[in-house]
Amino acid sequence: MNKYAIIVAGGSGSRMGSETPKQFLLLHGKPLLMLTLAAFFEADASVIINLVLPKSQISVWLSLCETYHFKIPHRLIEGGQTRFQSVRNAIKMLPSNGLVAIHDGVRPLVSSQIILKSFEIAAQNGSAVAAVKPKDSIRMAKENQTIAVDRNQYFLVQTPQTFAIGLIKMAFLQDESPNFTDDASVFEANGGKITLFEGDYRNIKITTPEDLTIASVILRK
Amino acid sequence: MNKYAIIVAGGSGSRMGSETPKQFLLLHGKPLLMLTLAAFFEADASVIINLVLPKSQISVWLSLCETYHFKIPHRLIEGGQTRFQSVRNAIKMLPSNGLVAIHDGVRPLVSSQIILKSFEIAAQNGSAVAAVKPKDSIRMAKENQTIAVDRNQYFLVQTPQTFAIGLIKMAFLQDESPNFTDDASVFEANGGKITLFEGDYRNIKITTPEDLTIASVILRK
Repeated sequence: MNKYAIIVAGGSGSRMGSETPKQFLLLHGKPLLMLTLAAFFEADASVIINLVLPKSQISVWLSLCETYHFKIPHRLIEGGQTRFQSVRNAIKMLPSNGLVAIHDGVRPLVSSQIILKSFEIAAQNGSAVAAVKPKDSIRMAKENQTIAVDRNQYFLVQTPQTFAIGLIKMAFLQDESPNFTDDASVFEANGGKITLFEGDYRNIKITTPEDLTIASVILRK
Repeated sequence: MNKYAIIVAGGSGSRMGSETPKQFLLLHGKPLLMLTLAAFFEADASVIINLVLPKSQISVWLSLCETYHFKIPHRLIEGGQTRFQSVRNAIKMLPSNGLVAIHDGVRPLVSSQIILKSFEIAAQNGSAVAAVKPKDSIRMAKENQTIAVDRNQYFLVQTPQTFAIGLIKMAFLQDESPNFTDDASVFEANGGKITLFEGDYRNIKITTPEDLTIASVILRK
């Protein structure tokens, strides 16, 4: 079965207190987005990588690829106004058969094991979404208050979120909704069944300067 | 109003793959539990610190205090079989008036600001529980499946959890329940109203070797 990846890199870097979009910040001496693409290439070189970037960043990316002699083959796709639209743009470009792993550009620490597992599970179940158990107690808002809930009933969702392409293509024909916080929620709103599998606490999303430092520590190990 | 802290350090270290209980692992060259006590002392030297330790660790702690010339005044209390019982042992020792901040021994990165804020808010509201918004999408178990939920309605709970002593004393007269995952849930089960306030993502709980490395990075900043 053909395997595809859609790497979504839409961030502007405002939360980083930096002018550089966070996906271009250096980690291990390279724009971290390159590490994310490399993770997929190293897990399985046959995966066809699609990188979604805001139009304004495409030329920057191309010049970074030259500067850093970045050779991992990938196709560039122009992003939309929102994450939903960005992913939709990429999904439209895919053939109807095969599997696609949709992954945050700012999660460069994803392991080969997680990537391969997500393809395997999606091949069997139609979907495979990496998730971890919360380590903290959880409270839920209720009538201007909050109440304790059983944390064993909850999962913190990561990426990759991997799908049978035929099914996720249909899901992305829906109109956009504010309830779509990730691709699993789009898939589910179209009647798809979500299969979770155990993610990895180290597969962090880099959104603050501390995250970047933490990522570099994890990488060094 | 008199202020107390209960620092709960009950862990055995098994998750660390280490023989040393995690609260004694070195961070910045000191057993990390010492940093936790120091955080309270530095926030407000008038806070009366109560440290709850398993019976088997008390002599180790005393000898560590000697080795590291640890001089921050604190009272030692023997822990129970569970966290609930450990906190209850300490709560019983407190007078009925004042405020008590209950805090995980393995959260050494708590800031002065968070500690002071928790006492302030608890003085006004009877409770003050540090919590942060989840950064990831959340799913909830439902009938052998999971469903997407609105993450804006959820909070990840940290410590300190600070209470009016009179109220938390009454709450700890209840029988222990498996639903008591933290002190806020005990307080709430007795009819108490929980006031959340904004915690700090850096105030991590150290439960894995990676957490220890991450904590040392955050500390160096």
